[in-house]
Amino acid sequence: MMSRIVIALGGNALLQNGEKRDYETQYDHAYRTFENLKSVTENNETVITHGNGPQVGDIQQSHDISGIQAHLHQSVAMSQGYIGEILANAYNNIKARYGLRKNIFTIITRTVVDEDDPAFSNPEKPIGRYYSDGELGEARKNGWAMKKFKDGWRRVVPSPDPKEIVEEPVIEYLLHNGNLPIAVGGGGIPVVYRNGVMYGIDAVIDKDLASSVLATAIGADFFMILTDVDHVFVNYGKPDQRSLHEVRVDEIEQYLKDGQFGEGSMKPKVMAAIRFIKNGGKKAFITSIENSVNALSGGSGTVIVR
Amino acid sequence: MMSRIVIALGGNALLQNGEKRDYETQYDHAYRTFENLKSVTENNETVITHGNGPQVGDIQQSHDISGIQAHLHQSVAMSQGYIGEILANAYNNIKARYGLRKNIFTIITRTVVDEDDPAFSNPEKPIGRYYSDGELGEARKNGWAMKKFKDGWRRVVPSPDPKEIVEEPVIEYLLHNGNLPIAVGGGGIPVVYRNGVMYGIDAVIDKDLASSVLATAIGADFFMILTDVDHVFVNYGKPDQRSLHEVRVDEIEQYLKDGQFGEGSMKPKVMAAIRFIKNGGKKAFITSIENSVNALSGGSGTVIVR
Repeated sequence: MMSRIVIALGGNALLQNGEKRDYETQYDHAYRTFENLKSVTENNETVITHGNGPQVGDIQQSHDISGIQAHLHQSVAMSQGYIGEILANAYNNIKARYGLRKNIFTIITRTVVDEDDPAFSNPEKPIGRYYSDGELGEARKNGWAMKKFKDGWRRVVPSPDPKEIVEEPVIEYLLHNGNLPIAVGGGGIPVVYRNGVMYGIDAVIDKDLASSVLATAIGADFFMILTDVDHVFVNYGKPDQRSLHEVRVDEIEQYLKDGQFGEGSMKPKVMAAIRFIKNGGKKAFITSIENSVNALSGGSGTVIVR
Repeated sequence: MMSRIVIALGGNALLQNGEKRDYETQYDHAYRTFENLKSVTENNETVITHGNGPQVGDIQQSHDISGIQAHLHQSVAMSQGYIGEILANAYNNIKARYGLRKNIFTIITRTVVDEDDPAFSNPEKPIGRYYSDGELGEARKNGWAMKKFKDGWRRVVPSPDPKEIVEEPVIEYLLHNGNLPIAVGGGGIPVVYRNGVMYGIDAVIDKDLASSVLATAIGADFFMILTDVDHVFVNYGKPDQRSLHEVRVDEIEQYLKDGQFGEGSMKPKVMAAIRFIKNGGKKAFITSIENSVNALSGGSGTVIVR
């Protein structure tokens, strides 16, 4: 039976850690991603969403070095075009090779956030390269908030909670008739309403939380968060580590409260999945790209149910 | 009566010569553009296309300076996101102010070109900044073709003839039901088919010629090319200069053959208009943004008819 599914691709759909971030490398990963996903995309109403972590960092850094006058929200917009092209070219070649039917296309997507979101007074999301102690003063001169991480200082930006996907009506409209939208890239271009007027605002939005908002808005049956592990773990890295298979939303919410999931990695994925189920979704999956087909038929991955 | 119209915005829809190329400046122009166009966009099935001349030059140059690994076709993709956001934010605020109905959204668009196009062996389209004689060697080290212009050397890239708009079926599908697509930005991301496999290729495509291909493919009634003059002129700058009002396609084709229109400025616009009419379009308009509504009702602008 055909289901409506939002598939959120993690960074590993385009890159492995440490790889050269050129077109060819990312294209090859994208090609394998769509090869893995083809039975899902072909036989369901699917929307593809994706992250932009390393790419938006590169783009923003490129602007900082060259002095091009672009806000961070514009770098997000550019990353959607950049990644959208790679994904769409890869899909078109998988389509030709396997005789698939759907037309893929990338929608530049804006996500509404609340200007009063506490994230704006407490930026925490790192972007771009590491800075040494000696470079810190220079970086702060740009008006950037800087935060010390394990390997040095990084610029941190607000990551407010996504409220609404501006392009949602168009995405929903396009799901019909054999179209395969790529949307909500990098969580969407952050915009706020100020006295009813829309403005771009400098922030980055978590792509899983934004994808969850979209999945709810379009009434998706399933929400798949694809990452580099087959399952969510509890007691991760400890002797009693255990992978989660089918898990009720109240159960995994308790694990979340217990601090089981890593900040900035598994935690937002679990939060996004929980929100989707609480907002009426049937099943949320967290698994690897390779296991996605298997997960949908109940054979693998972490599945969050009501 | 509702018509189907492709509106190709020239560079002045976003910038005037010499202006600061920041978000705010371009947003203000985009806002006025949609304010001028609102009765056309609201009462017809319209697709908005746009150029990317200064923007793609800035983006590519930013990559050259920072060393980010991105091909020119990726810079085009990025410029579509960058400009799409500005146009969409401006439209949303015009929509709110005037109570318009349509949903705007930006489709990242690819345009198929022929790898055997003579443009690939004879690059002529300038992009990016000027280089002095002294910098020429350094620029050529990048493998760039360089050409001398009035104010110095510039990198030149191939500008092949557009053959097909990859996202055309989706754009056509979206024209219905009150949607307002932004597409074919900067003429589209250039792609070629090599043994049936699609590749991005380094080139820039003339936005008016690509918009003409789209206009024909979606069966548009009208094709409007909006620029910074109210009319096309013959004998431009001479004592017998004359503006063209309603002109038959065979007439203006003769002017074109006579070399009446400037390379890289009015010539591709006139060529794009001629192709549209010869491929079955009803009327092609070349006029200013301010005169667009007037032109549609027959009161202004250059109108090319069969």
